[in-house]
Amino acid sequence: MAPKLKITPILLCGGSGTRLWPLSRRSYPKQFSPLIGDESLFQASVRRVSGVGFAKPVVVTGSDFRFIVTQQMAEMGVDPGAVLLEPAARNTAPAVLAALIHIAATDPQATVLISPSDHVVRDVPAFHAALATATEAAADGRIVTFGIRPDRPETGYGYLELAGEVTSEAATPLQRFVEKPDRARAEAMLTQGRYLWNAGIFLARVDTLLAAFETHAADLVPPVRAAVDQATPDLGFLRLAPGPWDQAADISIDYAVMERAPALSVVPFDGGWSDLGGWETVWREMGPDASGVATSGAVHAIDCTGTLLRAEGEGQVLIGLGLENMIAIAMPDAVLVAPMDRAQDLRLAVAALKSAGAKQATEFPKDHRPWGWFESLVLGERFQVKRIHVNPGAALSLQSHHHRAEHWIVVQGTAKVTVGGEVSLVTENQSVYIPLGATHRMENPGKVPMVLIEVQTGTYLGEDDIVRYEDGYGRG
Amino acid sequence: MAPKLKITPILLCGGSGTRLWPLSRRSYPKQFSPLIGDESLFQASVRRVSGVGFAKPVVVTGSDFRFIVTQQMAEMGVDPGAVLLEPAARNTAPAVLAALIHIAATDPQATVLISPSDHVVRDVPAFHAALATATEAAADGRIVTFGIRPDRPETGYGYLELAGEVTSEAATPLQRFVEKPDRARAEAMLTQGRYLWNAGIFLARVDTLLAAFETHAADLVPPVRAAVDQATPDLGFLRLAPGPWDQAADISIDYAVMERAPALSVVPFDGGWSDLGGWETVWREMGPDASGVATSGAVHAIDCTGTLLRAEGEGQVLIGLGLENMIAIAMPDAVLVAPMDRAQDLRLAVAALKSAGAKQATEFPKDHRPWGWFESLVLGERFQVKRIHVNPGAALSLQSHHHRAEHWIVVQGTAKVTVGGEVSLVTENQSVYIPLGATHRMENPGKVPMVLIEVQTGTYLGEDDIVRYEDGYGRG
Repeated sequence: MAPKLKITPILLCGGSGTRLWPLSRRSYPKQFSPLIGDESLFQASVRRVSGVGFAKPVVVTGSDFRFIVTQQMAEMGVDPGAVLLEPAARNTAPAVLAALIHIAATDPQATVLISPSDHVVRDVPAFHAALATATEAAADGRIVTFGIRPDRPETGYGYLELAGEVTSEAATPLQRFVEKPDRARAEAMLTQGRYLWNAGIFLARVDTLLAAFETHAADLVPPVRAAVDQATPDLGFLRLAPGPWDQAADISIDYAVMERAPALSVVPFDGGWSDLGGWETVWREMGPDASGVATSGAVHAIDCTGTLLRAEGEGQVLIGLGLENMIAIAMPDAVLVAPMDRAQDLRLAVAALKSAGAKQATEFPKDHRPWGWFESLVLGERFQVKRIHVNPGAALSLQSHHHRAEHWIVVQGTAKVTVGGEVSLVTENQSVYIPLGATHRMENPGKVPMVLIEVQTGTYLGEDDIVRYEDGYGRG
Repeated sequence: MAPKLKITPILLCGGSGTRLWPLSRRSYPKQFSPLIGDESLFQASVRRVSGVGFAKPVVVTGSDFRFIVTQQMAEMGVDPGAVLLEPAARNTAPAVLAALIHIAATDPQATVLISPSDHVVRDVPAFHAALATATEAAADGRIVTFGIRPDRPETGYGYLELAGEVTSEAATPLQRFVEKPDRARAEAMLTQGRYLWNAGIFLARVDTLLAAFETHAADLVPPVRAAVDQATPDLGFLRLAPGPWDQAADISIDYAVMERAPALSVVPFDGGWSDLGGWETVWREMGPDASGVATSGAVHAIDCTGTLLRAEGEGQVLIGLGLENMIAIAMPDAVLVAPMDRAQDLRLAVAALKSAGAKQATEFPKDHRPWGWFESLVLGERFQVKRIHVNPGAALSLQSHHHRAEHWIVVQGTAKVTVGGEVSLVTENQSVYIPLGATHRMENPGKVPMVLIEVQTGTYLGEDDIVRYEDGYGRG
């Protein structure tokens, strides 16, 4: 059932946690990974709020992730209404407020849905039904939040306390927010009928929300409004102005507004929601078998129970033998092994890697760029081999290097190659040589991805040996 | 102290177990891997029996491993006296007998040392001292075996029962061999003073041993003698004749001869011997820290106890978080995670991989060839990228392919390249194109290894798409 009003989704996807390392890293956080199924969490979130009844989504993200956002939306054939780029991560309140101000400028009566994009919702029709229920309360000027009926004494979520027992699917007034509880409190709330998990999803009219910000978080409004007013368009993105943005407090929308607003309603929702806040949750959402084993990729689980095994690398197998309540995540450049109940301590692992200067702490093996992505296949003492994937229609900058020469061999699609002013088309099984110092550019003029193998030789092979002469993506 | 007689070592290195998978695989078994320290177990075994007092070793191995043997010995600057190739693995008795017959043909009075090459001996001077002690008994026509004083109730080894308490380092008559015991029996033997582990190392005169074979394993002698007499020299190897070899029983030297021979002596030996029969033994031999943690490679062990962690891949990190009594072995193409006490069940893992048709069951990522090695860096749908390492002076066969073209980029050293009859020298940062169907050959005419990156494109990229016209290594 489609919602009764047209809803403008605000998708927040600027976060970058480490609780799902090594799959989630600062350079490529979990919302962009296909943790459950074939789509990324972000793509599933976009799909959930696309179609009949929805306006184009407004996406708020960090500058580092802007091309991942457009690439993943392009794969789905969905256009963003706008992509706002946060100059720095300031938690959810400034991000939401910027989107509200942006939307209100053209549609002051819009009904907006504020949603994180790193959560799982298994039952999308049930979610749409809950939205339909919520639109009535939203039209009446209420802020509606969505409450998930708990099925376990979860200590990792905040709770919503309702005024009375949840007896129907109708919007019910919210009594108060409850912070993440301890185990005993969580067990007590589970047995009572008026506590729901706080999914962090809100539906309301944009004017209702702006008024709530003015009332409860007035200090946030001037800097964020200035950041939006002074925003600069950049290749279809809207870069919020960093000067005023830096004046905005780093605060969540729950603390800044929702916990203080009087007119909140809750719509109960049983559609299989999860926030994938750690590997244990991923394991649960993957649907473990009768032995409690969940696997992904080329995995063999032998005599295992209560265990999560994922092999993420191409051509990589993972064997779990006799494991009980363990997680093992294998990637080509990093492997994690821990008991399930230590999954929440992953920050220790990431901190250890950072201290050791290991790039795996923050960098994903695939490096996403405006034009596609690349990965290093092997890094030798004086050579490096990369696989480079260029999106249809995309072009790398016109550039040169001081310390390396490059050989390019096209293995899929067709490249348009410029070397020292000469332009040629290079197709599968053809190669080009780029001498040290020569200006060069690689483009994909075709309709399918172009893949080439780059073999670099030289004394210094760092990404910073690059002189850019022209760049379609505004990079220096 | 050097032994008093010149000893001719017989090194057995044809075995291929799976108990150290994924580091040990059929195509590259454990004796050739640097499990402890920088040298492989085979290299350490060669070093242990090289120098003053030793003749050149006679190596017995399988045909698949012949170039690994010569490559690893060349790295050490040690020449083999001979490398005998078993047409098929027939356990240790036929292998030893073939070596004895080969040695007796030129030196019928030789004193030989029969040794596996997948064991660790930490104290080499102590081993040499034990050999010196043993040579006297060997000169008197006795077969001397070496007994390791047990320091734990090991159930994985066979034992030697001495006629009396071990009181000195002198050769002592052997009472009998004891099969691998159960735990209770092993504990009982540990408390008594006259049981030693059977290291499977023997010293004796070649005529003593041949006489023992004639007496106790007479059926073995005619086929093995025929296999040696009809052996064909091949590039410095001696290929035992397969016809007669197939008639030889598949039996160990212990069963065939040693357990029946009356004149055995035992020299006790405390030099830190271990057979590295499984990951638990490797963990112990690596020297775990105070928490019982042993690591190798780019590993971070956080809050771990009694755990073995190895990261074998270039550029691969392994994180163990909160592990107790676990093993985790990370390689680029395969990862193993298991509790330490399940390490002996690795055959289950290898069997699962075999059933799934996974090449990791038996194939090592680096494929060793007569001329060096290669590894696949990425295998796409219609392309493959390989790193190829060619030893100084080595040459690949003159060949062509029906289904693929190749680009070669030299990244280290200099290649001599033949394409369709044209010969050229190609050096670092130069490339060559091999059209589909063209005959071609790659050689390393230099004094240092030559490394090149090969980019294949085509519809079929299997190793069997090869037509060989000329091959320096006798391959069809």
